[in-house]
Amino acid sequence: MEIGRFNRDFEGLFNPRSIALVGASNVSGKWGFIMPMNILGGGFRGRLYLVNPNEQTVLGMPCYDSLSAIGKPVDLAILTIPARKVIAVVEEAAACGIRNVLVVASNFSEAGPEGAKLERELASTANRLEVTIIGPNTMGLYSAESSLCALGAPVLPRKGRIGFVSQSGNLGVQLLSWGKKRGVGFSRFVGSGNEANTETTDYLEFFGRDDKTNAIALYIEGLEDGRRFLEVASRITPHKPVLVLKGGKGEQGSRAALSHSGALAGALELFEGMFDQSGIVTAETSEEFLDLVSAFSSLPLPAGDGVAVVTMGGGWGVVAADACDREGIDLAKLPGAVVGKLDEFLPSYWSRANPVDLVGNLRRVNHFKVIEALMECDDVDILVIMGPTLGREFVLNNMLFTFLRPLYRLALSRPLRIPGFLMSMMEGFNQSVAKKDVRNPEGSVGIDPTELRLWTNRALIDHLQGLMKRFEKPIILVSISETAMADFKRLESHGIFTTSTPEEAVHIAAKLARYARFVAGSGAAAGRGEARRARQRKEAP
Amino acid sequence: MEIGRFNRDFEGLFNPRSIALVGASNVSGKWGFIMPMNILGGGFRGRLYLVNPNEQTVLGMPCYDSLSAIGKPVDLAILTIPARKVIAVVEEAAACGIRNVLVVASNFSEAGPEGAKLERELASTANRLEVTIIGPNTMGLYSAESSLCALGAPVLPRKGRIGFVSQSGNLGVQLLSWGKKRGVGFSRFVGSGNEANTETTDYLEFFGRDDKTNAIALYIEGLEDGRRFLEVASRITPHKPVLVLKGGKGEQGSRAALSHSGALAGALELFEGMFDQSGIVTAETSEEFLDLVSAFSSLPLPAGDGVAVVTMGGGWGVVAADACDREGIDLAKLPGAVVGKLDEFLPSYWSRANPVDLVGNLRRVNHFKVIEALMECDDVDILVIMGPTLGREFVLNNMLFTFLRPLYRLALSRPLRIPGFLMSMMEGFNQSVAKKDVRNPEGSVGIDPTELRLWTNRALIDHLQGLMKRFEKPIILVSISETAMADFKRLESHGIFTTSTPEEAVHIAAKLARYARFVAGSGAAAGRGEARRARQRKEAP
Repeated sequence: MEIGRFNRDFEGLFNPRSIALVGASNVSGKWGFIMPMNILGGGFRGRLYLVNPNEQTVLGMPCYDSLSAIGKPVDLAILTIPARKVIAVVEEAAACGIRNVLVVASNFSEAGPEGAKLERELASTANRLEVTIIGPNTMGLYSAESSLCALGAPVLPRKGRIGFVSQSGNLGVQLLSWGKKRGVGFSRFVGSGNEANTETTDYLEFFGRDDKTNAIALYIEGLEDGRRFLEVASRITPHKPVLVLKGGKGEQGSRAALSHSGALAGALELFEGMFDQSGIVTAETSEEFLDLVSAFSSLPLPAGDGVAVVTMGGGWGVVAADACDREGIDLAKLPGAVVGKLDEFLPSYWSRANPVDLVGNLRRVNHFKVIEALMECDDVDILVIMGPTLGREFVLNNMLFTFLRPLYRLALSRPLRIPGFLMSMMEGFNQSVAKKDVRNPEGSVGIDPTELRLWTNRALIDHLQGLMKRFEKPIILVSISETAMADFKRLESHGIFTTSTPEEAVHIAAKLARYARFVAGSGAAAGRGEARRARQRKEAP
Repeated sequence: MEIGRFNRDFEGLFNPRSIALVGASNVSGKWGFIMPMNILGGGFRGRLYLVNPNEQTVLGMPCYDSLSAIGKPVDLAILTIPARKVIAVVEEAAACGIRNVLVVASNFSEAGPEGAKLERELASTANRLEVTIIGPNTMGLYSAESSLCALGAPVLPRKGRIGFVSQSGNLGVQLLSWGKKRGVGFSRFVGSGNEANTETTDYLEFFGRDDKTNAIALYIEGLEDGRRFLEVASRITPHKPVLVLKGGKGEQGSRAALSHSGALAGALELFEGMFDQSGIVTAETSEEFLDLVSAFSSLPLPAGDGVAVVTMGGGWGVVAADACDREGIDLAKLPGAVVGKLDEFLPSYWSRANPVDLVGNLRRVNHFKVIEALMECDDVDILVIMGPTLGREFVLNNMLFTFLRPLYRLALSRPLRIPGFLMSMMEGFNQSVAKKDVRNPEGSVGIDPTELRLWTNRALIDHLQGLMKRFEKPIILVSISETAMADFKRLESHGIFTTSTPEEAVHIAAKLARYARFVAGSGAAAGRGEARRARQRKEAP
């Protein structure tokens, strides 16, 4: 609300040698309990001092009466005390040489005119004393570098290279939690809360020059100084992607934002124009936001917007093609040579077009060949794969499940049939092995039991990562089946980006292609796509 | 492609006393193996005969040389044989009195002119013989009534009351699989495939009069006879919701549809107008489709479109309010009396508006009171709840996790501190219990350890179901945290509908409100909302 213009100590904030927590408590569920528990549990590399004049010990540690009683240098103070007590402690902190104060308390500008007055006082005090206030009304911060997990929720984020600022602490930590499940890692997180004297743009500027961060995610409800934001973002986007989820867009949303973080949420058109100009990538929903963050931090940028789709079932291909229409992105036309190559691995009645329907072909070696042929194709810039990328655990589970259920039913109703049933299985297995090299242009020849080692997650990850590296093209997986979700989450933690529907995959592909065009236009990566294409032409047989 | 006009035996199809499977095989991964395995594994109540002239026994059962060799009545034949052999077997089936033939094989109209010719021959043969062909190019059917799981994928669907027709078998069975994980149950499923002589509208008509089915889901790529579809659907929608996902909408999508099911996908505008007129609810994406199916089969219809949102964190409230703006649906304005009631349970600085931000209040008894006060409010027709509805497992997990991590760190680095740490925990617990009735207008007083029995999933389910029944208003949960997903899936299987984001929740709310307006307008439920409101006015104190 009154942004400070002084030199800030962001290094001390995200990499403090010591932290003092004022308001420490033994009562579970209170901020003064959750915060130090999470700092301890996160394995923070520096020192932690607890302050509470009414307690002798908290969490088994000695408790100081005040900040000044600590008598050692402190880089960051965290206050879990009521709003009305904050300003006095900020003054004390400054007197102790503390340059960063994180204020958890709500009941400031979001709570009405009285709170707004208190927040203005806080801001001008802090500006006078050159203290960076994080919050108030924040759920804390995270920094991978120093294993600092000062969060008000039981989330230990995954370490990675995304810097994330959220004007909503709750939304922020939930996204950290989703990210953890999906293998999306963060370098830094800060819940900027009401932004009394330190705003999103300040953190953005730091993340722009922070070598621990290579993609930046922002949840923004409102901005004090749009011009400055635009200027800072424009300097960063040609080199690091900046991804934004804008809250408080419409009339009802802005009203909610005002009573949440006290932000004046500003007209939607203004923001959209601003984001577009500065090469910022925007998300429409919270789920899309996490998808974008994950994709932009793990995938190579495409050189164009030709999409190829591989699917195990035609319906999903149609759904993906519809999504391409909706996103205004082209299904690459496959050249005759590529179609001819695919003819070798697919039954005679495959569609001979993109989307490439594998029509139920269960040979993994063929899946790999199809994927490679498409990655090699100059007209394909982005590959979306649905279905054939299931790992061995999934296949074995399914086979076992398919086999055990009938066995169970037989045991219940006709146990005498079980020996015959088992002998049939054995005979079938022998037939599979005997016919494993037979081609059947009329359809499936079943699973080849000798290729199961190709079905491991490891084999799949290595293969896809190798292809992405070799061809510098992004591959997006779709984890169609829920059963396969767990498998896919494992893949994602190895940098294989996955979505749960074809529509999301195509949407992300369109966003990648668009940002790639912006970067190319900005000159930061001039000729990158051209260079790749030229090299490929040379390498082509 | 040449829809038969004869009396069909849908009872025999969905509730057959006996099935003959032609093309049975012992080779795992082949259709002739997967299908009978799934039928056996599903616990089918009738008889199953296997046919394959080249085998003595399959799956431990005796194998017949042909359909005629069975010599017993058969209601449904399933053919897992190549396309070119199908017509002869259909003729044999008709001669044996079989009125339903399911054809798995592809390589018909979707594969080009030759296949299309074969499919036309199949259709006219079947029409002449009055045989209903399911498919060709289908992944099978399911019927809860007779525990018939004749599917080409290892999915045993959950039993329920949704009838589902899909022109893509693959998409269909994947949705059955998603549904199973989410507690969404089906009465019948049929993959209608290329629809040689039996189309979506035929199944729709049957589901309309089927008393096992109370909501209908359709994945449609194309329709032979739009006028007939419109007519049939319009008769059903005032009584049973009909939910449609339309594939092959745009140019690229239609092309993919043609090479998939051979359907001419028709112009988008034509379909949209058609769906709108007949009260059909449409989904834009596959994920939304399953959400709609789940919501419409489990929730009461709202009497209006006033939405109230309860949230644990302000940011999610803003995101939900934005979604309301986008969907053109109103956040209900809370009357002073309701705000006054909420004042009793919430800290002094709560927003006093809708979305209702619980500002981190961790007392479940307060959550219940807030939810009840909003359900009672006449201006609220739909309630969206984010965050406070986490079950005990989630809370205990979190508490344990928060506690064990610091303990582990202490054990590694400062084991001598552990006794003091544990004593602090004990002291904090005693403080919580002592202060459990204290109100703290300035913030949280932590968790009340004596109310843990209120945090069970059972308590939550009972409470929410009771409220929905009492007030005839839908409640939609949002399972914000991934950790809570498992919990939420359990809730959903008890008829508590959940989404994974606020945006989806609001979107579903808007669709429910819209359909409710259609039903009210159609006269089928005239005055329903009015009656409820009148009753509530009478009951009001």
